[in-house]
Amino acid sequence: MEERKPPDLMHSAAIHLLRRVARVDDESGIGPARLSALSVLVYRGALTLSELADAERVTAPTMTRVVDGLERDSLARREPHPEDGRSVRVVVTARGHGLFQHARRRRLDVLDDLFAGASATELGTLARAAEIIERALSTRGPSRK
Amino acid sequence: MEERKPPDLMHSAAIHLLRRVARVDDESGIGPARLSALSVLVYRGALTLSELADAERVTAPTMTRVVDGLERDSLARREPHPEDGRSVRVVVTARGHGLFQHARRRRLDVLDDLFAGASATELGTLARAAEIIERALSTRGPSRK
Repeated sequence: MEERKPPDLMHSAAIHLLRRVARVDDESGIGPARLSALSVLVYRGALTLSELADAERVTAPTMTRVVDGLERDSLARREPHPEDGRSVRVVVTARGHGLFQHARRRRLDVLDDLFAGASATELGTLARAAEIIERALSTRGPSRK
Repeated sequence: MEERKPPDLMHSAAIHLLRRVARVDDESGIGPARLSALSVLVYRGALTLSELADAERVTAPTMTRVVDGLERDSLARREPHPEDGRSVRVVVTARGHGLFQHARRRRLDVLDDLFAGASATELGTLARAAEIIERALSTRGPSRK
């Protein structure tokens, strides 16, 4: 087996970290697909259904079901696109923002707990690594995250 | 807005990194849900449907559809559980292993490209950060990733 390079090791660590913190997402009660779509809408603002499907790498019919679910729970709603009245876009409601912030807080609590034993040096390494990753993403290839 | 702590910054960087590398997964032709389930089966070995649903944080009916899809493409198959003949577990086929390895190679190529401009010091920081994360995950809370 070939020796694994630092980016590969970081990729694995990122997968493991997100799997761990994602466990508390269940407490949101809306399931991973809807919570993930909601977070994209919170961070990127109003999106059309196809932009949202694209961001989540799912088909338009799948995203339609996800958005139907969000709308049923009053977490997001469809509204006419301001620049193209025939098109609709999806926006987060106040209730959706609230649910997202609760879910984010739960993840932050897990993160705090996970790294409670980390030294100042280790925390510095994490912060620097995060910066290296963000810089690589913004300088190489499209900036859309 | 409160200042963001290193674990929070790393959590965001992990999300952004995985979103970026996941783009090439489309080339596998099987969609994110099936590719993710396949990777869990490759890393963890044969699992029952409920173990797999649990690992992917989806319902049993959703995972049944995912596994149906994998079986239809001969990427995985159901077989009787060796210790409980009434139960079934899902195993990856040789074809499934091959498809997964191709998908992994594509991600590694993206990672190599992303960090091609990183210095040796930066690569060292990434490797150390990955180690800090893996250690935190293994020492705090359940070891299952």
